[in-house]
Parts: sequence; structure tokens; C-alpha cells
Amino acid sequence: MIDLQSLSVWKSLTAEQQTALEAASVRRTCPKGTVLHQGDADCTGLILVCAGQLRAYILSEDGREITLYRLFERDICLFSASCIMNSIQFEIMVEAEKDSEVLVIPAELYKRIMSISAPLANYTNEIMASRFSEVMWLLDQILWKRFDVRLAEFLCNEVQIEGTNQLRITHEMIGRHLGNPREVVTRMLKYFQNEGYVKLSRGMIAVCDELDTLLEA
Amino acid sequence: MIDLQSLSVWKSLTAEQQTALEAASVRRTCPKGTVLHQGDADCTGLILVCAGQLRAYILSEDGREITLYRLFERDICLFSASCIMNSIQFEIMVEAEKDSEVLVIPAELYKRIMSISAPLANYTNEIMASRFSEVMWLLDQILWKRFDVRLAEFLCNEVQIEGTNQLRITHEMIGRHLGNPREVVTRMLKYFQNEGYVKLSRGMIAVCDELDTLLEA
Repeated sequence: MIDLQSLSVWKSLTAEQQTALEAASVRRTCPKGTVLHQGDADCTGLILVCAGQLRAYILSEDGREITLYRLFERDICLFSASCIMNSIQFEIMVEAEKDSEVLVIPAELYKRIMSISAPLANYTNEIMASRFSEVMWLLDQILWKRFDVRLAEFLCNEVQIEGTNQLRITHEMIGRHLGNPREVVTRMLKYFQNEGYVKLSRGMIAVCDELDTLLEA
Repeated sequence: MIDLQSLSVWKSLTAEQQTALEAASVRRTCPKGTVLHQGDADCTGLILVCAGQLRAYILSEDGREITLYRLFERDICLFSASCIMNSIQFEIMVEAEKDSEVLVIPAELYKRIMSISAPLANYTNEIMASRFSEVMWLLDQILWKRFDVRLAEFLCNEVQIEGTNQLRITHEMIGRHLGNPREVVTRMLKYFQNEGYVKLSRGMIAVCDELDTLLEA
């Protein structure tokens, strides 16, 4: 069972800091679809994923979405506690992509310990740097990659995450991951089907091995 | 004169740490155009801007550029020392946009002090968070903003930075800031000229007050 003691930084904290964190953290069960953190709402706290899968994304003014990164077991979401740092001037949304169980660490307490604990501050640095790296990867994709390649990579990644090539996902949802309108996704998937890369049926996309050839090209 | 003592974290370091940093830092004069840090090359160190102006940008495989953020006096560039954190998995370029003077702080020493100094680790966190915020702003722009608005905002920002509405900048260079081919910039600038937003002449763009109307719309 994943808990605070699973954190790699845990042993570098003092007994007193450990006790305070354990006493203050709250376990929460989040059915698939639960929005755990909503951009401009209050400072939810740090979220440790104990089970399941979360998705961090941003919203445009007119309701378009794009996925920034996924959080799996043992991952920590920092930006749901953006109040721990003055310089975090952006807002993200976090939702449960699967039924999930999380531990919420209160932001105020975390901030207080971080201010005096070099290990915790450095640990936080590493988390932020790794999210930053994911966003830089995304920026790179959006700027320079063709949409067919982005879609193919997304599908291959989903096959890995889900452990099956039969993906239960709507075109609408893919659009929200990739930041594109549904119609654009549907058009490209139909092209993929014609090329023999995927087989489409209602609410389901079967990814064929041939899709790899597009990525190797 | 800006030096290490100008850093807001300076007074929170021990005398020993201060002495070590001062002894190891190197002042460098960089004429406009100097590339101070090149993505995959070695770990240059942290760069403190003492005078002038730097530009951090990324490159596509085929040589296209986009500006991530600018660094002005007293700003620190962290990602030119990406070796201080394992989780920084991206590479940026840094060049002097004006004649500049910088202090280069060796990455190894900085990392060593950061590992035991909560103030320095938290200071680093804040720097990273503020760069992260700038990149998130950029992502937002690229994803959801029309190009005419991005170009207009860029020009207005340049007017502020340069303190004049007579901008000496090529269409090519604007394209490198915004991540677009030169032709796209030229076409939009011609449209701006027809609308009375700018006046174009060789190597110069005069920004008219009317440009604000586009941003207010």
C-alpha cells in the first residue's frame, strides 16, 4: 500500500516532520471522472497517487483542453498546491482518469517544512523539474510535430498504459488530450483506418502493429 | 554594479558558502549574438545577468526557433546548469540579445550548497517556478491564440523593452521569437500596415498607437 513512507524523501525528514505530515494528510477515494483540483479554486494541497491514474490538463477560455501529463502510482502532483510557491503563476486542472486513491498533503504544512528542510526543498525541485520536462516535450510536439505523428504516438502510449491494443476511448476524449477539435481527430483516424493502422468501431479503437511504420518513417 | 550579493538569497547563506561562491564565479563579457549555452553541450553553470539582455530559446531538428523567455538584469538562468538536477530532461539555448555582462556560477558548487541549504534550494525552486510560468504562458499562446494577436503582443512588448516605438528588428528575427517562418511574419506585418497598425521600412518597424485597438478587440 502506497503511503507517505513510499516517498523517496521520507527517510531524510525528521521524526517530528514525519509525524506532522502523517497526522495532517487525508486519504481520498476518487471515482473516475472526479475533478480533484480546479485551476483558480483554492489550494487543494499536494496529491500523492496511491492507486489509479490522474490527468493534469489546462483549459482555454472557450473550454478546449490539452493534457499536460499523467500521474501514476507514487507520482506527486505539485501544482494542485501552487500556493506553496509565489512564482507559480499558472493554473491547472487535475482529474481522476481511472478510479483512484490519493493522499492529500496540506499545502501550508508542506510549505512550512520545505522552508527549513533542504532535503524536502530539493525533492520538490526534482518533481517540478520533471513536470517541466514533460511540458517542454509537449511544447516541442505542438510546435514542430505533424498531427498524424502526435496522434500515432498518443495511441501507442495508450496501448502501453492500458496493456491492450483495444482502446476504449472516444474521439472527443482524444481531442481533449491533444488539444484538437473532435472533427480533426475523427478525420485523421479515418485516414489511419484506410491505411490499415487502426480498426474503428463504436467507442473502440483497435491499434494495429502497422501503426509503428508511421512512427518509423 | 550587480554581483552575487544582489541575489535575494545571499544573506541567507553562510559566510563560508558566500566565500566559496564568490571565489568560483567568473565574470564574462558577451557581445550581442554570443551563444552562452548550447543545449546538448556541457553544463555551463548558472548565469546571473549583470547587464544587458539574454534570450532563452529552443531549436527544432530542422533549425526553427522559438523564444521561451528573456532574461534581464538580476535574472538568473537555471537551465544552462541543467546538470544540477537529474529531472531536467530538456535542452535550451541561451544567447546575448544585447551586449551583456554575466556572472557564471559553477554548477557543481551550486549543487553542493543547494543540497544542504534549504534557503538556496527554495530560492532555486522559485526561479524554476517562474520560468515554468513563462513557458506555460507561451504554451497557452501557441495553443489558443490567433497569430495576429501574438504578433501584436510581441511588438507591444518590444516597444516597452526598447523604450521606443521604432523597432530595429528583421522579420526573420520575429519569426525566430514566435516560432513561425519569416514569410508568415511578413504577410501579417503587411496586413498590419494596410490596417494602419505599423509602418514598415528597411530593417525597421514603426509601431502605431492603433495597434492597441487590435489587442482590445
